[in-house]
Order: sequence, then structure tokens, then C-alpha cells
Amino acid sequence: MENIYQTLMQLPLFQGVSRAKLLELVEKTRFHFLKYEDGEKVASRATACTHLKFLLSGSIRCEMSTYDGKVRLIQTLHAPDIIAPDHIFGRSTHYPGNYYAEGQVGLMQIDKSTFMSFMQDEPIFLINMLNILSRRSQKSKESLLSISNGDLRERLAYWILNLTSRNATDIHINARQRDLYSYFGVQRTALLNTLAEMKQEKIIDYTINEVHILDRRALRDMLLEGIEFMEE
Amino acid sequence: MENIYQTLMQLPLFQGVSRAKLLELVEKTRFHFLKYEDGEKVASRATACTHLKFLLSGSIRCEMSTYDGKVRLIQTLHAPDIIAPDHIFGRSTHYPGNYYAEGQVGLMQIDKSTFMSFMQDEPIFLINMLNILSRRSQKSKESLLSISNGDLRERLAYWILNLTSRNATDIHINARQRDLYSYFGVQRTALLNTLAEMKQEKIIDYTINEVHILDRRALRDMLLEGIEFMEE
Repeated sequence: MENIYQTLMQLPLFQGVSRAKLLELVEKTRFHFLKYEDGEKVASRATACTHLKFLLSGSIRCEMSTYDGKVRLIQTLHAPDIIAPDHIFGRSTHYPGNYYAEGQVGLMQIDKSTFMSFMQDEPIFLINMLNILSRRSQKSKESLLSISNGDLRERLAYWILNLTSRNATDIHINARQRDLYSYFGVQRTALLNTLAEMKQEKIIDYTINEVHILDRRALRDMLLEGIEFMEE
Repeated sequence: MENIYQTLMQLPLFQGVSRAKLLELVEKTRFHFLKYEDGEKVASRATACTHLKFLLSGSIRCEMSTYDGKVRLIQTLHAPDIIAPDHIFGRSTHYPGNYYAEGQVGLMQIDKSTFMSFMQDEPIFLINMLNILSRRSQKSKESLLSISNGDLRERLAYWILNLTSRNATDIHINARQRDLYSYFGVQRTALLNTLAEMKQEKIIDYTINEVHILDRRALRDMLLEGIEFMEE
């Protein structure tokens, strides 16, 4: 229990919650603990998100794609984290991607109604959740308004920032180059020039059908540097 | 009071709240009612958003701009509506734009802590607020993933959908054409061709330094048609 407490306390959702309060909740709540082996599917795209899933140990690979399937975005989330906290409420209460265990994974989940009672019982949960959700909405708006010249760099930065988590690693875009320059609405040469420049600056690396983001923070700084309201 | 009740009940935030509950809240809460004359400023960009402001009567013009000030977005909100509900929590608890009364305006406001106690007191408020905030985050992600060819049309649709409210009218983009094609990362001819096509289709109208959105729904359909998860 001590371990779980230490892990949960690192999450923004639990920030400010006292140890006593957390223990009290654990006493009276049915937490479900789940284990996954390497490669096992943890959650499927477009299936109902009925529980809040806390990643307690290990890593999870998340794969999203554009609706036409031509551009895929892959990222790896690490414990402690929460899977898709913005998809348990709202209209589309479905997972936005497929989630797979990378190595052994330990999850804890609570159902929506139990989480609701947490928030009513303990205002700190409520404030934390409202902060997390509001922040996502604000981030999208801010980064959109911080675009200044609309070039591929800024558009790529915007796309990555809005679809990946702050602490995600191994961020890859998988797409044929043709689909990639079409998706971003640029010419082939513009795509290749920008990718080459960004590779030079060690922000990305790429092959014929993959872009690997080496430095997400550099993308953030490119878009949001100088803006007073910073990320997450 | 009956009028206010009728007005508030049209807002998603009050959906499912009983008349008795609302009256009870009104009894014990200090609501502030504010009146504004035509042209008066209701809220200023980058000032603290400390209250939830309900637009009970009249219309409010909202002006946002890119951080470099080159592209401005104007929209008009109509009663009943809530001003920037996603900016009262989160990191940037500041108004994202300037808000001006259009004609006579009646507002009601409650402070953040009173709103917090509403949500703790009445789970329906909590669910509604979580739904509203989650929806915004989901909408941003969905519309980003629904882009298929990244042309200016789709980018313009994405931009408008993410920065304007569903019921907003009189949506204008004010910018020099040079700044507009630069912001959207296209060539001048591409901008002019797309604007001309969209004007032909009665989706927009435009002059040398203004684009007027005539049909926001057409932009939404362009981007999200065929996607199972629909807007707001």
C-alpha cells in the first residue's frame, strides 16, 4: 500500500490529497488491480471508457491514427500516469487509440461512479480534475493562437503537442511520405526540407515512412516560448 | 426569478437540475447581477477569470487574436451562454479574449468557490461541468485526427471550430491577406483560390482584410462528417 500511495501521489490528480484521506478512500473503495504481459492490449480504440485507469508500473504504448488511417501516431506512456482522463466524461467516452503493454504493466482502475463520489467527497480531487481538463482545452487554444507563420515546423509542433502527453517518450509518426505531406498540406520538397532541418537540429530523426520525435520539448518551446501561459 | 430559471435551464451546465434545486441554490447563494450598455467591456484578455459569468440577456462580442496580433478572430455570443467556462480552472485562469456588450447585456456571475460548492452539493452540476470540459478536449483531438488532406479548407475549418463556440454568430477573421496566408502557411494564390471557392459555396464571404464565416456548420461537416463522435 505504501508503494501505491507513493506512486499515486506523483499524479496531478492526487496532488494535495493527504495520506490519511487516500488511505480512507482505499479502505472503503473497490480498487481493481490488473496485470498485463508484454504486448497485451490494455484498451481498444473506440471502446467505452468506463473506468479511470491508473498506470502504476511499467509502460504503455498508445497508437492513434487519423480517421482515414493514413497517418499513425505512436507514443509511450510511463508510470505513474492516467490513461485518457479526458475520455471518461463528455460525448465521446471512448478511448482515442489502442493501448498495449510494453513489458510487464500494473494498472489500478476505478469505475466512473466511484470516481464521481471521490470528487464529491474530497474537493481536492474535484479541483485537480477540473484543472487537468481545463488545461487541455486551454493548451489547444493557446498553441493555436501562438502559431505565427504557419510553416510545417509550427504545424508539426502543434500536432505533436496536442496529441501526445507531456511525459510521453518514443513518439513516432508512421506514414508514407506522400500521405504525410498531403496530411500537413505541403509540397514534397517542403516536407523533406523541413524534416532535414529538424533532423540537423536533433529535434527529430526520420526514415522513408517514419518520423521519430527526439525532442518534444523543443517543439513546445518553438510554439509556446515567450507565451506567458505555459504548458500543463 | 421564473425568467432566470427558464434561461439557465437552457444551458448545458444546468441540464437535469431540478427547479426546486435551483431555487434552493438561489436562496442561499449570492448571485451577482450585472448590466452593461452597448460597447462596454465585459471582460479583458489576460485578466483573471475569477467568476463564472452567465450571459442571461443580449449578446457579447468576443475578440481574440494570435499572440503576434496579426490575425484577429471575432465572434458574437448570445444569451444564454457562459463566458469562457474552460478558463476558470487550469493553469491559465485568464480570459482568452476581450468581451464587449453588443446592445444591452444582462449577466449573472458566481465566484469560483461558490461554483465549487454547487458541484459538491449537486452531482448533476459536477457531471455537466466535467462533460463540458472533456468535450472541448475531445473535440480538439477528433477534429485534428479527422483532417485528411491538410488543405487550407480543412485548416481553416479546424481553426474556426476550435476557437469559436457552437452557437456563435458573426464570425470574422480580420487580417491583412499577407498575414493570413502566412499564418495558414500557404501561398497567396492558394489562399485566394480557396477563399473564392468557399465564397462560391456560400460558406464564407471576404474582402481585402476580412473573412466573414457565413456557415460554421458547413465547416464542421467538412471536417467531422462521417465521424461517429459529433460535436458538443
